Amino acid sequence: MEKILVDGEWRAAESTGSFKAIDPNTGETLDHEYPVSSRADVDAVLAAGLRASHELRGVAREKVARFLERYADLVDERQDQISEAASLETALPVSPRLKDVELPRTTDQLRQAAAAARDRSWTLPTIDTASNIRSMFGPLEGAVVVFGPNNFPFAFNGVAGGDFAAAIGAGNPVIAKAHPSHPRTSQMLAEAAFEAVEEVGLPAATVQMIYRTSHADGEYLVSHPSVAATGYTGSRSAALKLKAAADRAGKPIYLEMSSVNPVFVLPGSLSERAEAIADELTGSVLLGTGQFCTCPGFVVAQAGEETDSFVTLLRERMEKAGVGALLGVGVVEGLGESVETLVNAGAELVVGGTALEGQGCRFQNTLLRTSGREFLGAPEKLQTEAFGNCSLLVVAEDADQMVTIAGLIEGSLTGSIYSHTGGDDDALCADIADRLRTRVGRLLNDKMPTGVAVVPSMNHGGPYPATGHPGFTSVGIPASLRRFAMLECYDNVREQRLPPELRDENTTADLWRLVDGRWTLS
Amino acid sequence: MEKILVDGEWRAAESTGSFKAIDPNTGETLDHEYPVSSRADVDAVLAAGLRASHELRGVAREKVARFLERYADLVDERQDQISEAASLETALPVSPRLKDVELPRTTDQLRQAAAAARDRSWTLPTIDTASNIRSMFGPLEGAVVVFGPNNFPFAFNGVAGGDFAAAIGAGNPVIAKAHPSHPRTSQMLAEAAFEAVEEVGLPAATVQMIYRTSHADGEYLVSHPSVAATGYTGSRSAALKLKAAADRAGKPIYLEMSSVNPVFVLPGSLSERAEAIADELTGSVLLGTGQFCTCPGFVVAQAGEETDSFVTLLRERMEKAGVGALLGVGVVEGLGESVETLVNAGAELVVGGTALEGQGCRFQNTLLRTSGREFLGAPEKLQTEAFGNCSLLVVAEDADQMVTIAGLIEGSLTGSIYSHTGGDDDALCADIADRLRTRVGRLLNDKMPTGVAVVPSMNHGGPYPATGHPGFTSVGIPASLRRFAMLECYDNVREQRLPPELRDENTTADLWRLVDGRWTLS
Repeated sequence: MEKILVDGEWRAAESTGSFKAIDPNTGETLDHEYPVSSRADVDAVLAAGLRASHELRGVAREKVARFLERYADLVDERQDQISEAASLETALPVSPRLKDVELPRTTDQLRQAAAAARDRSWTLPTIDTASNIRSMFGPLEGAVVVFGPNNFPFAFNGVAGGDFAAAIGAGNPVIAKAHPSHPRTSQMLAEAAFEAVEEVGLPAATVQMIYRTSHADGEYLVSHPSVAATGYTGSRSAALKLKAAADRAGKPIYLEMSSVNPVFVLPGSLSERAEAIADELTGSVLLGTGQFCTCPGFVVAQAGEETDSFVTLLRERMEKAGVGALLGVGVVEGLGESVETLVNAGAELVVGGTALEGQGCRFQNTLLRTSGREFLGAPEKLQTEAFGNCSLLVVAEDADQMVTIAGLIEGSLTGSIYSHTGGDDDALCADIADRLRTRVGRLLNDKMPTGVAVVPSMNHGGPYPATGHPGFTSVGIPASLRRFAMLECYDNVREQRLPPELRDENTTADLWRLVDGRWTLS
Repeated sequence: MEKILVDGEWRAAESTGSFKAIDPNTGETLDHEYPVSSRADVDAVLAAGLRASHELRGVAREKVARFLERYADLVDERQDQISEAASLETALPVSPRLKDVELPRTTDQLRQAAAAARDRSWTLPTIDTASNIRSMFGPLEGAVVVFGPNNFPFAFNGVAGGDFAAAIGAGNPVIAKAHPSHPRTSQMLAEAAFEAVEEVGLPAATVQMIYRTSHADGEYLVSHPSVAATGYTGSRSAALKLKAAADRAGKPIYLEMSSVNPVFVLPGSLSERAEAIADELTGSVLLGTGQFCTCPGFVVAQAGEETDSFVTLLRERMEKAGVGALLGVGVVEGLGESVETLVNAGAELVVGGTALEGQGCRFQNTLLRTSGREFLGAPEKLQTEAFGNCSLLVVAEDADQMVTIAGLIEGSLTGSIYSHTGGDDDALCADIADRLRTRVGRLLNDKMPTGVAVVPSMNHGGPYPATGHPGFTSVGIPASLRRFAMLECYDNVREQRLPPELRDENTTADLWRLVDGRWTLS
């Protein structure tokens, strides 16, 4: 049985059971056996995490930055082994994807978090000299729990991804809950993280990891008095149970839980460049076998010959494209259930719709179609997320109905509008954008949503039920760090007792501060 | 029966009952009769609020700013009548307090929110030119519900206070839930607000007000699909019910619900200036008859002769001071119950402890005392908030026990440390500050917490259960506006379709933007 990382030690879990990962390409079970942790393990990581959070308050931020950089270096050094392990567990290709796209993105996130931990501008230091009141964001008390999802074994991994980087960058220890579909990958990452912890000399429990718990112990974990906050990426049903537990305890929880990512294809754009849009859309739906939080699962076009031709273009591309493996048996089953829900709600299959037997975890590339009228009769059911290589095309009767549909979109991470490169679609575009604006975190023009740049302006968030709160993003540094922080105010506190960020003199060359209403480096 | 303000009209409520306010100075019932609204009223304000939020998106922000300023002007013009009405309903003096302190603070908040609505820096515009991704904070969809508390008839009033100013400044309409202890005051403020709405030409339902609902309808209101978010200031028990309802629906809710505001008086400070500290502490505890969210209700000192003398100083001052009226019968009863809880948990009465019969809503100025050992045996019970002119002194055995007590403080809005003006208390101060830092929103030195300056660096917030989230403040502009906002991201959106804040050229002289990692006005 593999070991868990608790309080600076790889130790045997007090397990209540075990599990093994599978190779989704073949459906075969992989060798290693991993523990399901008991409540005793949960209590152990919580207690050590609380102590580590106290110790971290006394540690120079420079050391936290160096840890993140050293960890990134170790992951880079081991990119071949880690990518191969991840590919075996997820069926995602080593290239192009794991080694040359996701891994560099992940180490870039770690290094960006290191830069933020070093320059401190993420803390938004605010000083009012007349009243001698000063404030900034600072770390929480306790460890941050991070639940990674199945679909990004590196970039959202509980022990390496965006939430991890943000929580550590803000000065908190992390308790990672590895996703059970890629335990070996998580283990290799945690080994690198822990080596970096030891090399740099951070508190031993700055990084801890367990693989799996019961649902009840998961709820216990996120609502425990010793926990700081939780970051979760995954399914809506599990998310809502964790949210209820954390909410009852008054513990912050940040959830990324579901999104259909509507794409509105306006008539002018279709007249102008239907083939190009069909290429982009098919590429985006099938990228990573559709297993992106930002997969365009819901496409709206206006009835007419051009849309009929567009459907043909999409069908041809879907049929021609290879069928990638899905991440696991559960994903195949879930996709089948979602397709069934959509069909029962009035959608028709254009292509696909069935799991491929005997070929590992595979499901036909799937396109469904329904009318605007059907949609208006069952807007909730027809926004069921079908996680995987699947999308639903809604054909609206006319432009007005497209606008009505836009006004019924549930909270989503993204919303895209394709319009004529001239002004032909401008009025309709404005009406749809107006409806989408409060319903999606990121609004795109003439672009599919599957690329998520790690830049300060990114919002990988959105209104409920895409996430739990519309003001936060899980991607984009420095904003993502402020989720795992509290607002610290100092009123009349003596100069030498202030944190360095808030003293009269700014001794850090690149620390932006809001002094008497003006942002300044001096 | 008085009317409610719904969708641009003062109209008769579809009431399920009625209530009258009382004069707390005499305990006598006042004349006007106000409706308890039915669910039909709640549905009406929600529907109109949703429409108004859509209309407001098309309104120039300058107009929102002019509304806030015009409203402030009208309140200033009517300061005599409004202050007299409020004094009658709350027993708070016209001067010094309602007319010369709270009213100017309130109109200042409205004008600061106007400035924020005009200069737009509160939206934190963030532009990354290489990726052409841009983001900012923007208004929500639907109206923001604001529940005002009993203790600030102007500055936290649902239709005039900090949450109102923040929600409107951010571009949202407001549904105010007036506090039933000062309905006439709220009505006069709402009249002024609505006149300003009409003069400036904002959507008619930008400001709506109801007086009271059933508890069930309150929960329905904050969890309704059409509501944007809720701001609530008041008791913890009601807050937690609203929180549960809003949380289940995924609706943001910002709560300010309880706080004991610990004050640690270190030995060196007591040796040096016991009389001055006793004056400050008594003044702060009795200010507004102790009915401040930031009232210092929990004082910690170290056992010894100087602390015994300090208790004598406090007792003398408490006895000598006049007894102010409390805000209502419920406050008198609540204070009596809290004192009983504290006594049952091991506290002794030093002075006071009893309601004054036949003198309106009055309760003796009250000081309780307990030992550190008693506190460590019942830390939760002995942190019961006793809202009113009351404080509990905990006498710790030694310095170590003071530190232990600091580590057991519940989430609180503030925490103060009084220390020797030289360095005598520095080591102990550092240990206590370290424990308090993650437990209080605002940490003070040598200052009582009752003054809350309306400056950008203010944090009137704190860890649960002081509020519902440690990252937000209800006082301090611009940060308070961002509670009632969502993060809007624009990815590859064409220049002319971007909001003005995010276009290439900054045409506003005083709009700060984070462009490629640097804050700039250009």
